[in-house]
Amino acid sequence: MERLRKIGFSRLTPLEEVLEKLLSRIQLNPIEEININESLNRILAADIISKIDIPPFNRSAMDGYAIRAEDSFNASPKNPKKIKYVGAIEIGETSTYKLHKDEGIKISTGAPIPEGADTVIKIEDTEIENEIIKLYISLPPGKNVSKKGEDIKLGTQLLNKGTELKAEHIALLSSLGFNKVKVRIKPKISVFSSGDELLEPGTPLQPGKIYNSNTPMISTLINIYGGRVIRGETIKDNKSVIKNKLIEAAEDSQIIIFTGGTSVGTKDYLPEIVSEAGTILTHGIAQRPGAPVLIGYLNETLIFCLPGTPVAAYISFLNITGLTIRKMLGCSALDPRTEVIATISKDVPVSGLGYLHYLRVTLEKSQEGFTAIPVKLKGSGIISSLTFSDGIVEIPPNQEGLKKGDTVKVKLFPK
Amino acid sequence: MERLRKIGFSRLTPLEEVLEKLLSRIQLNPIEEININESLNRILAADIISKIDIPPFNRSAMDGYAIRAEDSFNASPKNPKKIKYVGAIEIGETSTYKLHKDEGIKISTGAPIPEGADTVIKIEDTEIENEIIKLYISLPPGKNVSKKGEDIKLGTQLLNKGTELKAEHIALLSSLGFNKVKVRIKPKISVFSSGDELLEPGTPLQPGKIYNSNTPMISTLINIYGGRVIRGETIKDNKSVIKNKLIEAAEDSQIIIFTGGTSVGTKDYLPEIVSEAGTILTHGIAQRPGAPVLIGYLNETLIFCLPGTPVAAYISFLNITGLTIRKMLGCSALDPRTEVIATISKDVPVSGLGYLHYLRVTLEKSQEGFTAIPVKLKGSGIISSLTFSDGIVEIPPNQEGLKKGDTVKVKLFPK
Repeated sequence: MERLRKIGFSRLTPLEEVLEKLLSRIQLNPIEEININESLNRILAADIISKIDIPPFNRSAMDGYAIRAEDSFNASPKNPKKIKYVGAIEIGETSTYKLHKDEGIKISTGAPIPEGADTVIKIEDTEIENEIIKLYISLPPGKNVSKKGEDIKLGTQLLNKGTELKAEHIALLSSLGFNKVKVRIKPKISVFSSGDELLEPGTPLQPGKIYNSNTPMISTLINIYGGRVIRGETIKDNKSVIKNKLIEAAEDSQIIIFTGGTSVGTKDYLPEIVSEAGTILTHGIAQRPGAPVLIGYLNETLIFCLPGTPVAAYISFLNITGLTIRKMLGCSALDPRTEVIATISKDVPVSGLGYLHYLRVTLEKSQEGFTAIPVKLKGSGIISSLTFSDGIVEIPPNQEGLKKGDTVKVKLFPK
Repeated sequence: MERLRKIGFSRLTPLEEVLEKLLSRIQLNPIEEININESLNRILAADIISKIDIPPFNRSAMDGYAIRAEDSFNASPKNPKKIKYVGAIEIGETSTYKLHKDEGIKISTGAPIPEGADTVIKIEDTEIENEIIKLYISLPPGKNVSKKGEDIKLGTQLLNKGTELKAEHIALLSSLGFNKVKVRIKPKISVFSSGDELLEPGTPLQPGKIYNSNTPMISTLINIYGGRVIRGETIKDNKSVIKNKLIEAAEDSQIIIFTGGTSVGTKDYLPEIVSEAGTILTHGIAQRPGAPVLIGYLNETLIFCLPGTPVAAYISFLNITGLTIRKMLGCSALDPRTEVIATISKDVPVSGLGYLHYLRVTLEKSQEGFTAIPVKLKGSGIISSLTFSDGIVEIPPNQEGLKKGDTVKVKLFPK
C-alpha cells in the first residue's frame, strides 16, 4: 500500500465499502415490454403469475377410452364388462357429448376428458367389436387422467422479478400463454480508452504504439452483463479532449467507462477532470490488480475510470461495473458468474495485507472434484493470463495467502 | 423398453451409437470474416498466430530515466553517480536520440526505451538539478524494462480454431491488432411444432388446446448453441401439411427440427413422412426422457424429430441437436455446458435398465462442495421441473441408479 500512498492515494477503500456506497445510489431502470423470442438473458421486471391452469382441462394421459370408473368395477380378463362406443375425441378437439352410464368415448393422449367421464382405460386393456367395448380391468376414478391445474394452478407465482431469462424460462412463459414479457431497459453506456500510445486494431502497427484492446473487451463485457454500448472510442490523453468527451457522453449515457489515465501519474487527468466536471465517489480501491479505480458521477451519469492494464480493467469491470449494470436491471443475482468449489494446488503467498487479491486459476477435474491451479503471471497487463485461465479466486484482505490443499471458491469467467 | 417395443419401436439405439453415426456425417460450415465487436460466442475458424511481438518494443515498466546500466554501477545514496539529462520520452512517442555514456532520458511507463539505453532507474531513486541527474542506486542491465516479445513472441500460436470467443479472447485478439476474425457461418435452422392442440402464445386460450412452448424454447436453444432460426412455426398434425413444410424448408435449411408427432401413435406422421421424403438415420433412442427421437435427412438437410413433451424435447436438443450445430461450427468443445461435481442427496432408483436416464437436480453449495438434490417430477411435460432445476445428472444405461452420497457430475443448463 506504501507505493500507492506515495504516488498520491491518500486512502484505499475496501471493495465492500465501495460497493455499498455505489450500489445504494442505483435506481432501477424503466420497464419495457418485449417479444418473448427476444428475451434471452433479459431480466424479468415483474413476477410471473399463472393466469391459467396447466393442464387447462382434465386431460387424458393415455390413448384409450374415456369412461365412468364405476362401469369398470369388477371387470377382469375372464369377466369383462361391456360398454357402448359413442364416438372419439382427438387431441385438440373437444366434445360436447355428456357420457352416460355404460358408455365409452375413444380418446387420444392429451385430449380433454368429456363430461360424465372420470377415468381413461388404456386401449390395450380393452377390445372393441361392433361398437361394443370390452373392459378387461377395473379402474379407480381418476385413473390415467391429468387433472386440470394439476401441474400449475391458476394464480401460482412461478417466476420472480429479477430472474435472468434462459431457454427453460422462455418455455415456461410460452406454455402459460405469454408472448411478451416485461423487462428493464438496458442502460446506455459509453466506453472510452485514453492513451497516446493506443492504436485501433486493424491499422498498421507504429513505433512506440500498442493496440487498444480495452474498448472491444469492455464493450463485450457490457453486452454480457446486459448493458448497451452506444459509443466506443479510443481518445488521446489530453485533458480538454477527455473532459469534452465526458460532458458530451453524460448527455445520453447512464454509465461512462474510461480505461487508462486513472492513476495519479503526470498524464492521469481523469481524477482532476471528474472532480472538476462532476463528483468523485471513490478513488483507489484496496484490491490487486485494480487499485487505481475511480468512481464518480456527473448529474445522473455514473463514471467508472478503470485501470488501463487490461487484466485490471477486466477484473474491476466484473467486480464493480458489471454489478452496477445488473443492479439497474433489477437482477436478483448481481454477479452472474458460476462459482465452483476447488482445492488449491499449491501455496499462494500474498504480498501486501489489506488488499483483496484476485488470483487467476485454471481448473482440473478429477473424480473427487476440481483442483485450482494458479496461473503464473507477470503483470496485470498480460491478457493471455485471462484467456488461459478458467476463473478467479478471491483472497480476502485479512488473509495472508492460501495453503496447498485449501478449499477455495472459483468464480468462473462470465459467458 | 417393453412398452415402447410394444407400441412399435423395434429397437432403441444407445445414444452413444446414435451420436457416432450422426456426427460422423457432419461437415464443417463455410467460413466468414466478421468484425471483432460482433464475435462474442462465435467459434474461431482458424488458429490465431501472433503477427507481432508484445510488447512490440523494449518498454519502460516505470516512470524514471532510461540509462546505460553501467553508468549506475557502484552508485549509492551516499555516493550518487551523476549523468546528463538529454530529454524526455512520453508514452506513445519514440525518440531517435541515441544515448551516449553518462546520459539519461526521462521516460514514462509504457514508453519505448531509446537506443543505447538498457535500463530504467525509478524517479524516486534519483534527483535532478540543472539538467544533472543524480543516480542513488546501482542497477543491473535490463532492470525495469519489459523486453520486446517478452509477453508474446511473434509467431506464437495463441488461440486454436474451435475456440468459443468470450470477452477475454476478444481482448487478446484486439491486442494483437485483429479487428476482424474468421468464424464459421451459423447453420440455418427451421423449427416446426406440430399438434392440433397447439395454440400460439398471446392468443386467447381455447377449449381442449394448450399453448405451444416448444417453438420459442427450441428457437432460444438454437441461438444459445450458435445456430440461426430462419423459420419457426406451429403447424397442424396433418400429413400433407407436415410433408410439404419439410420439403419446403429443406430447400434453405441445414437443419429442420420438428417437435411432436414423432412417436408411433395414430397421429405420429413424422416417421412415415421422413422415410417417404428422405431417409431415416435412427428412430428410437435408449434414453429417458426422449426415447421417441427420430433423426433423418433429406438431401443435405438434417431432420430432427424431437418429442412433443417440452422436457424431453429440451434434453434431446442438448444431447443431440445442440452437439450437431456445434460440430458444424467446428467447436472444440461440442457440449458447452459447465460440469460440476456433486454429492447426491438421496437414493435414486431407476426403472428400466438399458436406458440412459436424465435426472434433473438442484444444487446446494456448502463449504465442502455441492449437493445435488433430485427434483421431484411428475412427467417429462412439466417445464417447471426445468426452471426449478440447475442441471442434469446422467445415469448410464448399465447402472441401476444412484446411492445417497454417490459422487455425480452435474451438467449445468446452458446459458
